[in-house]
Amino acid sequence: MLKIAIDAMGGDNGPSPIIDGLILALKKDRHFNAILVGKKEELLPLIPQKFNNRIEIYEASDVISMTDHATDALKRKESSAYKAIELVKSGEADAYVSAGHSGASMSLATLRIGRIKGVSRPAIATLMPTVNGNTLVLDVGANVDCDANNLKEFGIMGRVYAEDVLGIDNPLMGLLSNGEEESKGNEVTKTAFKLLEKVPNFVGNVEGNDIFNGTVDVVVCDGFIGNILLKTAEGVADTIGKIIKDNLRRSLVSITGAVLMRKVFKNLKLKVDYAEYGGAPLIGVQAPVIIAHGKSNAKAIKNAIFQAISAADSNLNNDIEEKLKQFKD
Amino acid sequence: MLKIAIDAMGGDNGPSPIIDGLILALKKDRHFNAILVGKKEELLPLIPQKFNNRIEIYEASDVISMTDHATDALKRKESSAYKAIELVKSGEADAYVSAGHSGASMSLATLRIGRIKGVSRPAIATLMPTVNGNTLVLDVGANVDCDANNLKEFGIMGRVYAEDVLGIDNPLMGLLSNGEEESKGNEVTKTAFKLLEKVPNFVGNVEGNDIFNGTVDVVVCDGFIGNILLKTAEGVADTIGKIIKDNLRRSLVSITGAVLMRKVFKNLKLKVDYAEYGGAPLIGVQAPVIIAHGKSNAKAIKNAIFQAISAADSNLNNDIEEKLKQFKD
Repeated sequence: MLKIAIDAMGGDNGPSPIIDGLILALKKDRHFNAILVGKKEELLPLIPQKFNNRIEIYEASDVISMTDHATDALKRKESSAYKAIELVKSGEADAYVSAGHSGASMSLATLRIGRIKGVSRPAIATLMPTVNGNTLVLDVGANVDCDANNLKEFGIMGRVYAEDVLGIDNPLMGLLSNGEEESKGNEVTKTAFKLLEKVPNFVGNVEGNDIFNGTVDVVVCDGFIGNILLKTAEGVADTIGKIIKDNLRRSLVSITGAVLMRKVFKNLKLKVDYAEYGGAPLIGVQAPVIIAHGKSNAKAIKNAIFQAISAADSNLNNDIEEKLKQFKD
Repeated sequence: MLKIAIDAMGGDNGPSPIIDGLILALKKDRHFNAILVGKKEELLPLIPQKFNNRIEIYEASDVISMTDHATDALKRKESSAYKAIELVKSGEADAYVSAGHSGASMSLATLRIGRIKGVSRPAIATLMPTVNGNTLVLDVGANVDCDANNLKEFGIMGRVYAEDVLGIDNPLMGLLSNGEEESKGNEVTKTAFKLLEKVPNFVGNVEGNDIFNGTVDVVVCDGFIGNILLKTAEGVADTIGKIIKDNLRRSLVSITGAVLMRKVFKNLKLKVDYAEYGGAPLIGVQAPVIIAHGKSNAKAIKNAIFQAISAADSNLNNDIEEKLKQFKD
């Protein structure tokens, strides 16, 4: 029976959506149990009695808040994030899920659970919607300054994740650049291109629009660019939504149209709704670590837990170690 | 009377949309004339006789095609791009507009017309739509690897352009980063932050979504990231459009809704349609240079010509030189 350690305290809206999400997950999947880490007296009243045998509460008196510095996380040994990570490190739990301070989760996971052999730096991956599916993009924030070898490792890790966890056969992987030709790129990506050429299923450079049209399954970039493109994509989607709404308000005829198109917008929301994907896996550490959005609702937490389970059930970490070894130099 | 030199040959669809756009511009603005550079025998039949006194044709037998290397542009002295640039260099024309090979235009402008004193590298700027207006983003492709000083100069040039050409009072300028806090950024942007702090109206770091919500008037980034975010934005907009269309096809009710919402979509298209903006100015060279999209239609060319006129009528280049001097070190 898998055990998932869940930081119950760190989210923007407290433990309620975390526990609601966990209960949704427990109802749907009978093959795992949870260890909720946090303040017992706050958590206990929120748990329906019939789940008592599947949810264990592990006391943690401290909470790392969103305004705290990630660098302090290692010293906050009584925090829910620290204690949940320790449960994974000691083997009492198989995976970690948190909607708390993402920098704290990252550094605790990297330094306490440790990296997979051969991984220079773990990377955060996220799924972006395309018309027919998703594209896995990494890194989207863990590593701001990357060298060519970091990018090569991200490519290998992303490819293995797409195959082992997302279940994609022979996933195609591309390097994000300012043009498709091999001659395009900045100094770092041009060197990374040469390193990645030796990795199977590397299709070469891809561009910003390729993320959304499904040209490849995996897109590699550094965490600075990954963060910017994530927020750019959100910004464009929000702006289009606002422009549509703005125009609707001005015209009664359009309001009628909008009512009729409600289903279309609902489908659209589904496609771009992060809650569908759950959270972002930190790939490259020795156990599954899922970093959920601070504003996660119950559905997002449920899906984050399922991501953790899929990774724990897979051969991900062994395969990453093996592939990194195989394509070293 | 201003004279605009127009590369008539380089666009994806030949000289027709270029000349159509020029005629739209000539009809609307009586205070400029044009020099069309290209193959006389191809161009002459396309020009209505009544514009003969406002359009001069300047023979150029060669065309730099989209598949040619930008590095060859300097050797192609009979090309329409080269000859149009020379007309500006010699003072026979006041500004340059081309829908041809953008790399060729950039290197010809930089090397033949020359940089403004104090400019290390010219930058390409573009307007991105927000709910209520536009944001000027630079660089979007001229410079792939930038140091902190390049970014600082882009910030100053963008601010002056927003004030002098776009007519924005006290434009706010931000540095694109992976978070708003001063501590965020990669090595280059962290140093650039410190340099830009001394420039008035610098608001600090901004994020990808700030480009589209109108937080600032000018956003600074290197050309590698600028290109990626441009294409990411296009990709998201296209994907949302496709998802809406896909869903429409599935439902008769939605088709009725879509008909009613036609006006909304038309407005939306207007907001995200590059043709509205015309082209991208290359800022930092000694004369106005507007690089239009290869696929430009007549409307885009018309607006590109108006951009060139606005810049030529302004005090842009003097102000850039002065501000760069003022904020040196």
